[in-house]
Amino acid sequence: MAASGGGDSSLLRRINSAATLRALRGGAALTVTELMDATGLSRPTVEGVVDGLLGERLVVEAEPESGPAGRRRGRPARRLRFHAEAGYLLAVDIGMHEVRCLLADLTGTVVARHSRPVHGVDAEERLDRTRAAVTELLRRAHVSRDLLWAAGVGSPGIVDRKGVVTYSAAVPGWTGTDLGGRLSRSLRCPVLVENDANLAAIGERWQGVAAGSDDVVYILAGLSPGAGSLINGRVHRGFGGAAGEIGALHLLGRQAPPETLLSTTGTPLVPLDEEAVAEVFRLARTGDAVAREAVDRFVQRLVHDITAMVLTLDPEIVVVGGWAAGIDDVVEPLRAELAKFCLRLPRVELSALGSDGIGLGALRVALDHAEQRLFAVSYEGAPHS
Amino acid sequence: MAASGGGDSSLLRRINSAATLRALRGGAALTVTELMDATGLSRPTVEGVVDGLLGERLVVEAEPESGPAGRRRGRPARRLRFHAEAGYLLAVDIGMHEVRCLLADLTGTVVARHSRPVHGVDAEERLDRTRAAVTELLRRAHVSRDLLWAAGVGSPGIVDRKGVVTYSAAVPGWTGTDLGGRLSRSLRCPVLVENDANLAAIGERWQGVAAGSDDVVYILAGLSPGAGSLINGRVHRGFGGAAGEIGALHLLGRQAPPETLLSTTGTPLVPLDEEAVAEVFRLARTGDAVAREAVDRFVQRLVHDITAMVLTLDPEIVVVGGWAAGIDDVVEPLRAELAKFCLRLPRVELSALGSDGIGLGALRVALDHAEQRLFAVSYEGAPHS
Repeated sequence: MAASGGGDSSLLRRINSAATLRALRGGAALTVTELMDATGLSRPTVEGVVDGLLGERLVVEAEPESGPAGRRRGRPARRLRFHAEAGYLLAVDIGMHEVRCLLADLTGTVVARHSRPVHGVDAEERLDRTRAAVTELLRRAHVSRDLLWAAGVGSPGIVDRKGVVTYSAAVPGWTGTDLGGRLSRSLRCPVLVENDANLAAIGERWQGVAAGSDDVVYILAGLSPGAGSLINGRVHRGFGGAAGEIGALHLLGRQAPPETLLSTTGTPLVPLDEEAVAEVFRLARTGDAVAREAVDRFVQRLVHDITAMVLTLDPEIVVVGGWAAGIDDVVEPLRAELAKFCLRLPRVELSALGSDGIGLGALRVALDHAEQRLFAVSYEGAPHS
Repeated sequence: MAASGGGDSSLLRRINSAATLRALRGGAALTVTELMDATGLSRPTVEGVVDGLLGERLVVEAEPESGPAGRRRGRPARRLRFHAEAGYLLAVDIGMHEVRCLLADLTGTVVARHSRPVHGVDAEERLDRTRAAVTELLRRAHVSRDLLWAAGVGSPGIVDRKGVVTYSAAVPGWTGTDLGGRLSRSLRCPVLVENDANLAAIGERWQGVAAGSDDVVYILAGLSPGAGSLINGRVHRGFGGAAGEIGALHLLGRQAPPETLLSTTGTPLVPLDEEAVAEVFRLARTGDAVAREAVDRFVQRLVHDITAMVLTLDPEIVVVGGWAAGIDDVVEPLRAELAKFCLRLPRVELSALGSDGIGLGALRVALDHAEQRLFAVSYEGAPHS
């Protein structure tokens, strides 16, 4: 990775700087000698790079190690560490009921979190509360807004490449909201907006059950499920951003609208009334036959949706998340149904990240942006040592 | 593209040779002066490259243009053209009923075709007839086997990266056939094996209704439909090569096995008995109510399958091919159903290539291989003029 040589072009400095940062970002505090070993660069080059990074506050001097007295000779060598607090990353999950915010340092370590209820509020109020939640999060963490390097934002619905929500059935008035534009004006940093299920898939690949998998289907299971897919490690958005908007998929097989799927009285459930839904699942566990039948209907519908996606995509792993995943076990019935229909069976797992999945996916997207700024250098034409 | 300079490395020669070939492959016969204009190379460089290409027989001298008498002065300039017959490409579509072979020159122009029936034969006999069909094709075209640069081969079922058919329900004994290995032994050229529906998608993008589209779903519609998808212009095979094996998809919605879908008597149709199936469609057109109902059932099932894929993938275009596409119009019912269920509507088109689609996709795959050989040079580190 690292390059040394007679030239001292700006490109060469960036390459050497990136190599040094990579060595330090593992977390250990290293001496200049250790950095020479890690990067293959000469002492003068490392010292020059370190001076620059100290100036940018991306590297700081670590406290000297305290060892047993009498074991040391002379002044201990200067140790350097990555300054993870030189910048911060924001992750915002704008959900149906809650806006959940995470704040992380430049290593991606979450340092603070804050949530606000947004149940049933209109689009403007939702945006206001989102901005207020971010302000409160930064205040509590004692982090200045100027230190934000990037924000990842998750939203239900179809999000276009500019960060506009072009369609959302779930949130009143949400369709047409220029989420990217409006939030970047108040946040004053790059804002990366993505569909919530897509982010959850990214989150599970980063820190959850899909770690190491490039071909992932994530089901955000609810009364109206959504899905996110990774293909070759990248989000598959589809030609118009509508990939995975499978809300209508079950209608192909049966005619029950989502509101009646879990109803035990014939009266439709208010969409996403989680308490009423939880009560149906609770009754089913106690042996109530009508509730059991409703839950079976619901699980069957999820299984149908997921199987159709698996037949289409042949993923390595299917991750079931969203609130429905936490209420009742859908994994075993899903495995059994997939075994009946699929020529090749994917792994099927419950989400490991639960309700943090979307936020962590948003954080990963912001972190990718930050890492581009930290590390991305063009190696084209660079001399090699 | 072209590079000239003081150096005359092997890499530089390859770059200049590729640039010259690209200029000639458009089909026109060009003079050295015209090649200089097209490539930006100097006269000595073009002349050197042309000498090399004449030696390899990739370029030949064109017949002098015959113009009106008296208009010429002196000897006409030498005109050079791409020698498309310096090599050949083979495409083989191993279908249920027929093996269909195409032979093309190095521009991809089909110069001969030949088919053999393979209805109901076992795997060994199918391979034998495939080899015999290729031999006969080459014999009739007066092309030596040694001139084959590559062969693209399409097969039903799941094909792994080595060209082994790892699963095929449709062809007796076909599962486990090392199609790539066995055909490359007799053909003595690289053999590229791919699932049939995937090839049809490639074919429609190359020469059919999906031209210019990178996100394509192709439905090979039959009693047991298959599908091929292009995502960002590349075939999506899935983690285990089973993407698009949607034969079981309709079972999620209804319980009719494919053999009874189109039955008007209650007796299952022999799978893929095209004559019996065609008869049902014919009766439906004459107004027979029972046949009409069977056709409606069949179309509804296709619509179900396709809609599930569209919701999952959000393609730019859906192409309906396979024999079912030619028997009855499925496009209008499909458009109407998609409009009910999808947040974004893809274009829906009947295949333009019909039964040639798989073969042309196989030819495109072989042509890609040939073009790599003709044109692929690494530009890394190359000096620029």
